[in-house]
Amino acid sequence: MGESTAGGNRAAWREKLRVIIFEADTDAGKAFDVALLIAIVLSITAVMAESVAWYRVRYRPALDVIEWGFTIIFTIEYILRLVSVPRATTYARSFFGIVDLLAILPTYLSVLFPGSESLLVIRALRLLRIFRVFKLGRFLGEADILTSALRRSRQRITVFLGTVLILVTILGAVMYLIEGEENGFTSIPRAVYWAVITMTTVGYGDIVPRTMMGQTLAAFVMVIGYSILAVPTGIVTAEIVEAATSKASAITTRACPHCLTEGHLPQARFCKDCGSELEHYESEEM
Amino acid sequence: MGESTAGGNRAAWREKLRVIIFEADTDAGKAFDVALLIAIVLSITAVMAESVAWYRVRYRPALDVIEWGFTIIFTIEYILRLVSVPRATTYARSFFGIVDLLAILPTYLSVLFPGSESLLVIRALRLLRIFRVFKLGRFLGEADILTSALRRSRQRITVFLGTVLILVTILGAVMYLIEGEENGFTSIPRAVYWAVITMTTVGYGDIVPRTMMGQTLAAFVMVIGYSILAVPTGIVTAEIVEAATSKASAITTRACPHCLTEGHLPQARFCKDCGSELEHYESEEM
Amino acid sequence: MGESTAGGNRAAWREKLRVIIFEADTDAGKAFDVALLIAIVLSITAVMAESVAWYRVRYRPALDVIEWGFTIIFTIEYILRLVSVPRATTYARSFFGIVDLLAILPTYLSVLFPGSESLLVIRALRLLRIFRVFKLGRFLGEADILTSALRRSRQRITVFLGTVLILVTILGAVMYLIEGEENGFTSIPRAVYWAVITMTTVGYGDIVPRTMMGQTLAAFVMVIGYSILAVPTGIVTAEIVEAATSKASAITTRACPHCLTEGHLPQARFCKDCGSELEHYESEEM
Amino acid sequence: MGESTAGGNRAAWREKLRVIIFEADTDAGKAFDVALLIAIVLSITAVMAESVAWYRVRYRPALDVIEWGFTIIFTIEYILRLVSVPRATTYARSFFGIVDLLAILPTYLSVLFPGSESLLVIRALRLLRIFRVFKLGRFLGEADILTSALRRSRQRITVFLGTVLILVTILGAVMYLIEGEENGFTSIPRAVYWAVITMTTVGYGDIVPRTMMGQTLAAFVMVIGYSILAVPTGIVTAEIVEAATSKASAITTRACPHCLTEGHLPQARFCKDCGSELEHYESEEM
Repeated sequence: MGESTAGGNRAAWREKLRVIIFEADTDAGKAFDVALLIAIVLSITAVMAESVAWYRVRYRPALDVIEWGFTIIFTIEYILRLVSVPRATTYARSFFGIVDLLAILPTYLSVLFPGSESLLVIRALRLLRIFRVFKLGRFLGEADILTSALRRSRQRITVFLGTVLILVTILGAVMYLIEGEENGFTSIPRAVYWAVITMTTVGYGDIVPRTMMGQTLAAFVMVIGYSILAVPTGIVTAEIVEAATSKASAITTRACPHCLTEGHLPQARFCKDCGSELEHYESEEM
Repeated sequence: MGESTAGGNRAAWREKLRVIIFEADTDAGKAFDVALLIAIVLSITAVMAESVAWYRVRYRPALDVIEWGFTIIFTIEYILRLVSVPRATTYARSFFGIVDLLAILPTYLSVLFPGSESLLVIRALRLLRIFRVFKLGRFLGEADILTSALRRSRQRITVFLGTVLILVTILGAVMYLIEGEENGFTSIPRAVYWAVITMTTVGYGDIVPRTMMGQTLAAFVMVIGYSILAVPTGIVTAEIVEAATSKASAITTRACPHCLTEGHLPQARFCKDCGSELEHYESEEM
Repeated sequence: MGESTAGGNRAAWREKLRVIIFEADTDAGKAFDVALLIAIVLSITAVMAESVAWYRVRYRPALDVIEWGFTIIFTIEYILRLVSVPRATTYARSFFGIVDLLAILPTYLSVLFPGSESLLVIRALRLLRIFRVFKLGRFLGEADILTSALRRSRQRITVFLGTVLILVTILGAVMYLIEGEENGFTSIPRAVYWAVITMTTVGYGDIVPRTMMGQTLAAFVMVIGYSILAVPTGIVTAEIVEAATSKASAITTRACPHCLTEGHLPQARFCKDCGSELEHYESEEM
Repeated sequence: MGESTAGGNRAAWREKLRVIIFEADTDAGKAFDVALLIAIVLSITAVMAESVAWYRVRYRPALDVIEWGFTIIFTIEYILRLVSVPRATTYARSFFGIVDLLAILPTYLSVLFPGSESLLVIRALRLLRIFRVFKLGRFLGEADILTSALRRSRQRITVFLGTVLILVTILGAVMYLIEGEENGFTSIPRAVYWAVITMTTVGYGDIVPRTMMGQTLAAFVMVIGYSILAVPTGIVTAEIVEAATSKASAITTRACPHCLTEGHLPQARFCKDCGSELEHYESEEM
């Protein structure tokens, strides 16, 4: 019985920790999350500063201390997360569980492979927690709309990207034949790289056609790319328009108190089927 | 009583001034506003001319006189605005009040900090008054539609830009590791700058990947950026389509003269509820 | 009476000429128009060839003969158009009348101002007649939809371009202050030119920021430009969607044979008001 | 009779072969197609590797053997396809028939015209078969939507591209006059090439205006191009929105079992005309 109480106490202690670390509704939980976000931003800034020669030369020891300091803090945090959560493996396999692990590994790896510290910027992904901390549920809702629009566009975009991939391969090979190695198109992969640069309208200018025939083909590729740009835009726009429309026309889940019908419009005041008065619909949007 | 009359006279004098300066309906008011717009354009032209070496060498004294002349004129105008308006602080804190102040400060600051005259181009913002002067109310209406479409897209665009920011940070760091300092990617911030240039399809070409692996990642970033461009476009388009649709279907605020129902379609000639004839709806659009 | 007949004959002769030159329904008219289009393409090709040094050196005399030959032919054609049309001034002031004149002037002007021959490419505008020649009425219909969508977007696009203009002016001036003349931003107009290059995502790379602060602002400008690109796209798309929708839902002009109501849907088989059978609606589209 | 049986046997043998080669439903058929796709990817990789100097110098003989090996395999496959299919000419004239032929020709041509091996990348088009192999019928459906949206936009896009072509010709000629040959605009065709680069926002930077007047016109062209980009996007988006809408609103072909009315909404459970219960509608989409 004493053991059972001890187990209960331990569980309570873990639950308390879990609320602080994983939830943002209590004062302690919010303070923890804000401190965490500040730590993440500071650690990324330190990683970036270390990559700049001017700072590295002057402040290397200090920056190394900061890097190790944040890594140790984040390692403790990771262990606490594993401990406090009911099922450690579920957390460890979740998106944020993997990101939290990847955010500390590079420092330890840098002992073996110098230079891998730069991968610490993967910590930036942890900043996605910001939406939860500031109760930005509405933003998460928006992110959901965008994500679901992109998810539903996935198949069309796969077809589109596959076609573009085949197109740039062939265009690159033709350009390699036309321009040849003396004009910078030193291989087909490099010519394909040029085709991607041109078709996406990035246009670095590090590889450019020099022959009249090559420039004519390039102009053709540009216009194609320009028109093709319309396709993903059209796909995503159609999805967002559809999502917004369906949201606008059927968002209320009010049930008629009399006949229990659902699907009333936001502005409806009476049941469309039996005429009973509906409760007032308050928009969740601002 | 004499004082009260004097106060009344002063008020009348201020009101008259206010109408000339702030309104564009009277002849004097319109003349004032047109003269103001011309002065703004001329002063911006002078600031630009002074920045061109060729003109600065030849006409410096003249351009300085012009700059100080316009600044003094705009200063007097600013004081008159403060005086004539009922509540000076309301004007001073309004968008145009702040712009009007910022439009004269740089000249005075240039006595202390030479070079800050270039900031005088902030006067360009004053040109937004042009829509009011020429009774271009319709343009303001269009601007309202655009502004409100952008405002409603604000949350989605914030989510989108936040995600892009995290993405370019990580891509930049990976590119820094791949290409290294010998290929121009001298630091992570610089590599992030490259990622922004590439993902937005600007593509200056001042920093370009040189290794095969870097070029492969770059091609990947380009295609990602190309597809991602579809997202803000989709968001804004969906909002404008929605705004246009809701405007088209429910724009009239006519009330039925008999049963007082509102919400009739623009083309409706009879009340949809009681069948009484509605007054003719005249579109405000051309 | 003899004169009147002569007048009638002259009128008939002019009418016959008008049908050949202005219409494309008769065999002679079509032959004339096809010959004209070929002549236009050939003359533009000659102008382009003359601008290429390699051809100019070798074939100058021949190209000059061709240029003068086509100019004389087009001059005769222009005079015939003026003569054959009922009201010469109406034609002369029409879009094609002005284009036809501009298409011959540069050759004559080149006697006075050598080099102006290049303006002969304005003849390209005459190619717009191609849609009429091949009875491509459907294309004209499509052009109408696009034109009217653009016309209705005119006000929004004006507001948009005005705002962009003010924005690039201010951004250019700030960049001029940050980067200074030693980094290529030699004047405010040049910095504004840079801002346009960057914001439209063209990105030549002939002027690029070199300071850390300038690159940060540039990245900011790119993301702004990237997002702003969504606005004109959204405007035009909304208009085209609306045009397509209204066309789809109300395209038929069939009147009910019984009650004369109009506005029936394309797929309607019975009058929506009195139930009389409607004549079958044949879509003009393929 | 013996012959007839032999003929029947031959037909059965051909039919068996046809199922393996052309269908992907049986195990043998799927194995064949997967092996084919792997062979295509490997052969394209070999062609690309041969174009890279580093590999060519070291592994030329091996790469030549691979190229000839795959070409012989694909030639045998092409002959088997011709033999097994009921009507050889129908296959030979189909899209994939032509692609399959073009995918083997360059190797044989390279005996006569060295260098044409690079055209072997046309084999990439054969990869389009991938959608069929993995029963990705859904992707083909999506491809159909995109293709039909593009096909219906064909006329508008032709009008649009024609107008852009005329525009870049005239803008190029004007730029040639302004900048002249000393600034890199060495001929009108080259200036037109510049106009295409600028208007499509590619912006290589290999040809850039240097005079103040040229840069002003360039900024104008950029803004035009930036706005014009909205047009094809708007066209394609409108088509996709329309396609998606009509699909969403009228996809079911269920007939009411009682009154035989069609055109019920996907979510409808009762006939909209007589109230009889409809059979449940199962969405084909996931």
